[in-house]
Amino acid sequence: MSVLSNKPEASIEPMMLYIGRRAREAAHTLALASTEAKNEALERMAARLELSSGKIIEANRQDLEAAQNKGRDAAFLDRLRLDGLRVAAMARGLREVASLADPVGKVMAHWTRPNGLEISRVGVPLGVIGIIYESRPNVTADAAGLCLKSGNAVILRSGSESFLTSLVIANALSEVTVASGLPEASIQLVPTVDRSAVGFMLGGLAGAIDVIVPRGGKDLVARVQEEARVPVFAHLEGVCHVYVHKAADLDMAKHIVLNAKLRRTGVCGATETLLVDRVVARTHLAPLVEMLIEAGCEVRGDPETQRADSRVKVASEEDWPKEFLDAIIAVKVVDGLDEAIDHIARYGSQHTDAIVTQDKQAAEQFLARVDSAIVLHNASTQFADGGEFGMGAEIGIATGRFHARGPVGLEQLTTFKYVVRGKGQIRP
Amino acid sequence: MSVLSNKPEASIEPMMLYIGRRAREAAHTLALASTEAKNEALERMAARLELSSGKIIEANRQDLEAAQNKGRDAAFLDRLRLDGLRVAAMARGLREVASLADPVGKVMAHWTRPNGLEISRVGVPLGVIGIIYESRPNVTADAAGLCLKSGNAVILRSGSESFLTSLVIANALSEVTVASGLPEASIQLVPTVDRSAVGFMLGGLAGAIDVIVPRGGKDLVARVQEEARVPVFAHLEGVCHVYVHKAADLDMAKHIVLNAKLRRTGVCGATETLLVDRVVARTHLAPLVEMLIEAGCEVRGDPETQRADSRVKVASEEDWPKEFLDAIIAVKVVDGLDEAIDHIARYGSQHTDAIVTQDKQAAEQFLARVDSAIVLHNASTQFADGGEFGMGAEIGIATGRFHARGPVGLEQLTTFKYVVRGKGQIRP
Repeated sequence: MSVLSNKPEASIEPMMLYIGRRAREAAHTLALASTEAKNEALERMAARLELSSGKIIEANRQDLEAAQNKGRDAAFLDRLRLDGLRVAAMARGLREVASLADPVGKVMAHWTRPNGLEISRVGVPLGVIGIIYESRPNVTADAAGLCLKSGNAVILRSGSESFLTSLVIANALSEVTVASGLPEASIQLVPTVDRSAVGFMLGGLAGAIDVIVPRGGKDLVARVQEEARVPVFAHLEGVCHVYVHKAADLDMAKHIVLNAKLRRTGVCGATETLLVDRVVARTHLAPLVEMLIEAGCEVRGDPETQRADSRVKVASEEDWPKEFLDAIIAVKVVDGLDEAIDHIARYGSQHTDAIVTQDKQAAEQFLARVDSAIVLHNASTQFADGGEFGMGAEIGIATGRFHARGPVGLEQLTTFKYVVRGKGQIRP
Repeated sequence: MSVLSNKPEASIEPMMLYIGRRAREAAHTLALASTEAKNEALERMAARLELSSGKIIEANRQDLEAAQNKGRDAAFLDRLRLDGLRVAAMARGLREVASLADPVGKVMAHWTRPNGLEISRVGVPLGVIGIIYESRPNVTADAAGLCLKSGNAVILRSGSESFLTSLVIANALSEVTVASGLPEASIQLVPTVDRSAVGFMLGGLAGAIDVIVPRGGKDLVARVQEEARVPVFAHLEGVCHVYVHKAADLDMAKHIVLNAKLRRTGVCGATETLLVDRVVARTHLAPLVEMLIEAGCEVRGDPETQRADSRVKVASEEDWPKEFLDAIIAVKVVDGLDEAIDHIARYGSQHTDAIVTQDKQAAEQFLARVDSAIVLHNASTQFADGGEFGMGAEIGIATGRFHARGPVGLEQLTTFKYVVRGKGQIRP
């Protein structure tokens, strides 16, 4: 993977540390910036992207040409490609972030103590966020917008294949932050494709980076999670399940399974495994499998599922923990709620899991006992998304247990402080 | 330091991994335990401690004797010593934790989407908490109680000097959890004084530990923060400041400074540096210094402070970032709010800092711009305490920016999941 680090080399270290120091300084100023200044900057950033559309697309043409010459495949080139519509979408994204509530300064809780002390828990930025991404140059604008609105400075590390495009975008954005009275270093792109830059970022740049968000494939995320010396907001994979309980309505189950698996197969909230309760296997299994196969999905099943439809392929042990990210599903018949929950605990990735049932008690059991960031009753796993949650844009989905869990939106990019207002109180 | 690790050695690895696996299993059960079961267990734990008081004090006598033979000083022996009153205080602490609200299952937020999806953010335990402590055996019961109430399994690593005492306490506690229907492994003490146990815990026991909380001196905390491969809730030091602004009422300033510095000098919320605005130095500096010296506090001042009182000693550059934890204070005259804030940013530890002023605008500036876990206006820094915040018992104070910041009480020992309830909704 092009953005992954070799061992950090000494050559670019001074530059990386300088980027870190500038980001930290910018973060101090940005933390105190007014909502109006930040929104104005976001509007200017959107307008500047539209204005620079030609320049961005020209840089992208060069990146695309180089990637083609390297023999990159069609999916890769599509992720890399920008056109007028995609640049417009980036600009629209920035304006949407401007319209979201500012999490900085938000009073999350307020109480008064018997001694009269007034205590508030107030949102403050995390500080400096490092974004390490691969071939999608639109991450440059999306991440920069979310970080700026949440009062954080950002250090962007683009994949080498999208480097020219990302550089033109980042320069356009940081130029206009100055015009809004915000520090130029609010948004910095690491200005080199030298692979050792990633290693330095994972080391935290001498305390200058507070959190790293990797945006890319599983290899990138795994490496970041393993090597980072600072907190990471990420999910390694989304091995999501739909469990069709014995009290499931068949029509609803079909509706949800079809959407959860096939609406989009490449997203982390796409279902990878269907669990069907043995009690309703006779009535529900064949219709569900038939529906999936006829919709173009490969079904890999346990022996019982294989018996239900001759087109079902054999599921091997490796299929249960697999994130297919494709029109393939693993299907298993389970002996009730306990086995379903055990299967999810054993093979899942603590991302998003759903139960379909008309039995509220069974649903509540599932929701309480399945230890995933998102658990759903009678709804598609593809709702695992900050926008669908009403958070506005998100920078990703986290499956860690600390700080950010589930969609990572503006609020998850902030922390808090306690503000205590007194009238001379002392502690007895 | 006796509990600090050498390099992990292979000999106790199987045992440590077994402890980790048992803790993880216990955590799964404990996460679903009812509030009633947990409270009953806490009450039983309290009663059992009272019943075992003689046995605990006898074990403590042996620990004390060994420590005395090693030539440990009086302060160390005092931290180690348990008597009937201290055992009773541990029991009372457990009953207090029983009386606190259960953070598990708490609905922190709830909203309905336009498509009818009902989304809740619900408190869930973190999982398995590792506590690494030194000579205070009461940490055994205090930490075990907080972890149990918050639905977390705990792995306790006692300092070698308090090991016998801690072992008797931990055994008493884990025995009665079983009687309340909770797993025996909810509370485990590492049953060896082998130093390599700490190294294994810092490595996370193959994913079995979710967070580590060090309880002890600065050397322990520094080492844990540096070596831990899992999140750590801790503060390295509390270099707390009181800034007497030019609009401060002198009487209030004296009242607050005296308390902030001298109420208890050994706590992390004790003030270590006093900053006095140059505008009021002529009227406020000498009375503040005189008060401190007459109360038995050594004052180390900048040249201006030295001129204010002949008894003031010379403050060196090393005194500004110093956590004295003693009746010593560093005093400096600053040129207004900006210099005060800059001084705190440069020398402070992002723990707790206060401003004394009658000027609300200046106070709000200070509260917004000082980047510490706790910032106060017209109140003593010694309020930095979970109990004083109304959280009930705390396991410590954290100065990190993630998840827990400030006092770490029951709520900070939990995370959350999103629970989504639908009626068959699919994503368009």
